[in-house]
Amino acid sequence: MKRGHFITIEGNEGAGKSTIALMMLDYMRDKGLTVVATREPGGIAIAEQIRAIVLDNGNTAMDGRTEALLYAAARRQHFVEKIVPTLEQGKTILCDRFVDSSLAYQGFARGLGIDEVMSINAFAIEGVFPDLTIYLDVDPQVGIERIHAHGEREINRLDLESSAFHQRVREGYQEALARYPDRIVRIDANPDIGDVFAAVAGVLDRFLDRSE
Amino acid sequence: MKRGHFITIEGNEGAGKSTIALMMLDYMRDKGLTVVATREPGGIAIAEQIRAIVLDNGNTAMDGRTEALLYAAARRQHFVEKIVPTLEQGKTILCDRFVDSSLAYQGFARGLGIDEVMSINAFAIEGVFPDLTIYLDVDPQVGIERIHAHGEREINRLDLESSAFHQRVREGYQEALARYPDRIVRIDANPDIGDVFAAVAGVLDRFLDRSE
Repeated sequence: MKRGHFITIEGNEGAGKSTIALMMLDYMRDKGLTVVATREPGGIAIAEQIRAIVLDNGNTAMDGRTEALLYAAARRQHFVEKIVPTLEQGKTILCDRFVDSSLAYQGFARGLGIDEVMSINAFAIEGVFPDLTIYLDVDPQVGIERIHAHGEREINRLDLESSAFHQRVREGYQEALARYPDRIVRIDANPDIGDVFAAVAGVLDRFLDRSE
Repeated sequence: MKRGHFITIEGNEGAGKSTIALMMLDYMRDKGLTVVATREPGGIAIAEQIRAIVLDNGNTAMDGRTEALLYAAARRQHFVEKIVPTLEQGKTILCDRFVDSSLAYQGFARGLGIDEVMSINAFAIEGVFPDLTIYLDVDPQVGIERIHAHGEREINRLDLESSAFHQRVREGYQEALARYPDRIVRIDANPDIGDVFAAVAGVLDRFLDRSE
């Protein structure tokens, strides 16, 4: 059986990731694809246990590298329990955040180094990169205003980081884009959601045509 | 202040690691060194939480690479919270098992690959290898018989692995020794404990003289 498509969606806070992911899901299903939407830890018990340690407010002593290793461990388990078997069933995976988030957030914005964070992630995913990554690139100021104005979800820990941090995340994504130009497609996520999705749909069409 | 010595002790089941470690501790303290004995997770809360996930009997779905990443994460936290600050206070660390255990057990015996397991451990320890590693090399059959005969501790999960597994662990240690010949010293751990310790003491003397 032909392996399914492995698609990820990335972007900084307020880029519209969740909304665009839902629209992508509908769009691909309308084209007759069987698509499984997921995000880490994806309901995988071991991955949930690992994330609980990362998110525990009592763990103030946690080192940045410990955190990166824990994210890689949770990713690995979600990858082997959910992503790989789904792809092997010929289904398409649409995953909200994957390796590139670690490169942008831990590798670049937190300063651990993109190469170093890539090394532990390479161990986790054994060379199985997404076939296509949609990177929603929003101006950090626009992103934060969007979250506050629309009240579309609760403000989370990352939203509260400094604007300098969000700027570094964006630079981290540009760096990932420079390294993986064949896989990552940058979409300008500053316009209205309809315009953003039109651009995404165009990318999806070309990707699916190419994969026929 | 001069950084303390970083010494680790390694070996497969029944090599006499715990006993030799206690004798090393006394020996170095008699020489006037301030020595802190530790082993992962070393009472570090975050590292204990991580190990609880690894050791949870309910986690039968745990992938070998997830496990290796979790060990590396626990190692990292113990390293930054305990090993580095102790060394910086000018004290000597004597650590029961460290990176080489991961190379021998996960990298070689479990078949994940020594280079690959080294890559995630390099991320965890940032190039801070032990100054000296005492590797107690025991014939796996002798080791297992020693544990069963002396009843010196309870039989653990690793003791119950097949003898083929223990043989692979030993080969893994030989491989680590070949890679780090300046740091790792092999001691024949098949003789009686007194003879083994005499050899270890000789190595320690030469190491301490060299480090004056």
